[in-house]
Amino acid sequence: MKAEIITVGTELLIGSILNTNAKFLSERLIDLGVEVVRQVSVADDMNAIIKELNISMNEADLIFLCGGLGPTNDDLTREALAKFLNKKIYIDKDAKEKLVLRFEKINKKMTDNNIKQVSLIDGSKKLDNNWGLALGEVNDYNGKKIFLFPGPPKEFEPMVDAYLAQNIHENQKIIVRSLNVIGLGESLTEDRIRKLNLENKYISINTFAHFTQTEIKLIAKGEDYEYISNVMSNSIEKLYDEFKDHIYSDNNQSVEEVLVKRLRDKNLTISFAESITGGLLAASITDVAGSSKILSSSYVTYSNNSKIKNLGVKKETLDKYGAISEQTALEMARGLKNKTNSSVCVSTTGEAGPEPSETDIGNVYICIYFSEDNYQLKHFYFPGNRERVRNRTVSQVLSNLLYLINKE
Amino acid sequence: MKAEIITVGTELLIGSILNTNAKFLSERLIDLGVEVVRQVSVADDMNAIIKELNISMNEADLIFLCGGLGPTNDDLTREALAKFLNKKIYIDKDAKEKLVLRFEKINKKMTDNNIKQVSLIDGSKKLDNNWGLALGEVNDYNGKKIFLFPGPPKEFEPMVDAYLAQNIHENQKIIVRSLNVIGLGESLTEDRIRKLNLENKYISINTFAHFTQTEIKLIAKGEDYEYISNVMSNSIEKLYDEFKDHIYSDNNQSVEEVLVKRLRDKNLTISFAESITGGLLAASITDVAGSSKILSSSYVTYSNNSKIKNLGVKKETLDKYGAISEQTALEMARGLKNKTNSSVCVSTTGEAGPEPSETDIGNVYICIYFSEDNYQLKHFYFPGNRERVRNRTVSQVLSNLLYLINKE
Repeated sequence: MKAEIITVGTELLIGSILNTNAKFLSERLIDLGVEVVRQVSVADDMNAIIKELNISMNEADLIFLCGGLGPTNDDLTREALAKFLNKKIYIDKDAKEKLVLRFEKINKKMTDNNIKQVSLIDGSKKLDNNWGLALGEVNDYNGKKIFLFPGPPKEFEPMVDAYLAQNIHENQKIIVRSLNVIGLGESLTEDRIRKLNLENKYISINTFAHFTQTEIKLIAKGEDYEYISNVMSNSIEKLYDEFKDHIYSDNNQSVEEVLVKRLRDKNLTISFAESITGGLLAASITDVAGSSKILSSSYVTYSNNSKIKNLGVKKETLDKYGAISEQTALEMARGLKNKTNSSVCVSTTGEAGPEPSETDIGNVYICIYFSEDNYQLKHFYFPGNRERVRNRTVSQVLSNLLYLINKE
Repeated sequence: MKAEIITVGTELLIGSILNTNAKFLSERLIDLGVEVVRQVSVADDMNAIIKELNISMNEADLIFLCGGLGPTNDDLTREALAKFLNKKIYIDKDAKEKLVLRFEKINKKMTDNNIKQVSLIDGSKKLDNNWGLALGEVNDYNGKKIFLFPGPPKEFEPMVDAYLAQNIHENQKIIVRSLNVIGLGESLTEDRIRKLNLENKYISINTFAHFTQTEIKLIAKGEDYEYISNVMSNSIEKLYDEFKDHIYSDNNQSVEEVLVKRLRDKNLTISFAESITGGLLAASITDVAGSSKILSSSYVTYSNNSKIKNLGVKKETLDKYGAISEQTALEMARGLKNKTNSSVCVSTTGEAGPEPSETDIGNVYICIYFSEDNYQLKHFYFPGNRERVRNRTVSQVLSNLLYLINKE
């Protein structure tokens, strides 16, 4: 099955936004075994949209029109498709009622333009928008399907997730699940999955690397829903057995989110003493709502002086081994423990460049300290530029932290 | 003049990368007064590329083919264009020599595939690649121009900047300059520019908002280079007069970069006491190379207890006014000064959500403290979600800081 994606919006053509919708939808289509042969962006222009529809009709089985369903006069994607299909547009009664209630609730006047967003093309199948106002729809035409989705990513993405699979494989049921793995590389994860021999005509399993995390994606497909759910549960169970220490989420949550949740569940607190990461670790944790319960204080100790003054690192240690050393990393974490008494104290030190210092760019030391009898002190070498070295360090810390805390 | 952009690469169609090249090139084309009417992505597939070239020939004056010029068998964009133009491909002698030397230097064996990257289509104009291996080129065809650029953004972007303008407006010289302004909104900046009456047929001036920063972009165009350089210098001078306190860069540098440079030049040090920003401010400064000279210590004081213990904020202040208040922001910054004696001490406190607390989401207090006689204490209201509130706070602090330090 082949798909083409037509994204509509002048803002794309003047380069003011990145086309995240085309990327998102393509990823989802590939997951469902659909080949994307063309992505095209055109302005909010009736003729341009119709021209691309004509081109796409040659090759694609599925055509996606995204964007241009809003309330302004510029938004004319639905009108363009109706003209192409030679059909009329009508107002959907249910959606209009909801829209009126919504405006009453926020005490704003609804303009005529807003009504446009709850219109549909004659004979189409409605796709309710529970994340915004403009309705989506699917049209059958000459044995092909033409989808309409609203453009704002916070509406577009959940709508694709809610409606794509069931509308593509109508006679087939589809179940998609993800397991997220840390503490193992992608290729090792993949090898171990292959050895389990889980794949068959009902289920496919693929891995995707995201920095230090690996996503295992399972897609079960078949006509009998109960049968494929059993195949899915069975595979998930076997994967849990195989990767029990490594699976941290089955819901594509970020490592940060799960880490904050685990720390809260276990009533643990955390502090950071950041040199090379310079605040990024604290920032990534405080990015998660509810993190104030687990992070009370954190320090950026960039200079030697600050390491001595704030954390009690010994001057002799810095002189003898350097600021970028196992010894300094350990003294930073230990000093942080003395100062904050947080359950977990994490230190980072390393060289991010652009110029090498006492050591090469990419050398990083990380200490995750619970107590004097229980700490992890590791050296890493991360190649790349300043940004990459710092980001890799953050990913590595979060992933190691979560792995250790899961086992605590 | 109309342009169409054809980006080539299977990785785009499977959704594994975002199409940053289409965005980058579109922005640059708009700057040069070219209208982008279509962006399309196709796989590394000879027929698909030729099909899009045929479509683009209908409407576009300029056609850009980007990507697929590498050494592997998948890379066949140049072959596709040659076939479309019915022309032959040859190896460029100069580029081949450079390539051979390059491989000798790094002591690696050059494979035959690599030679492909230094090939050109008969009759084309070569665009040297000083950022990688694959050559770019421009072909004249039926009164239109067809450009070939390599796909990796770190080659693509500098090549576009180096060759685009001069090849589009061949009889015209073009000079593009930017001024970056802080401490004034975009519309106010724009108003004041219009009143200066600087625009004429040789120069156009536009503004672009980037968070708290506004970019003023000047484009001078004409046949006589000396004349348009004079027009440009004259306009730049008038803009400097008008916005003297507000221009922080004429080179599109980030606020962070310029801030670190200014602090270093003035021998000033800085510390942060971050509550709502939770490490983001320190992270944004330490992202700049050389920041260790100016940032020695920084604190994330998320809890009340941490504000009391680390910064000496009074318990009574927190009880009486709350953690999110002018009073607390001031005591945080003052306490930070006592502790670190840094030249500039900055505190942030506010509510980022997702749930409102003692105050509404979006309420933020910022204190930039030089001394007891010289500090700025401000309240802001930033609407939006957690990420947006935190990012807006960081932009605002950096922009206010730079503005104050420029005047110090």
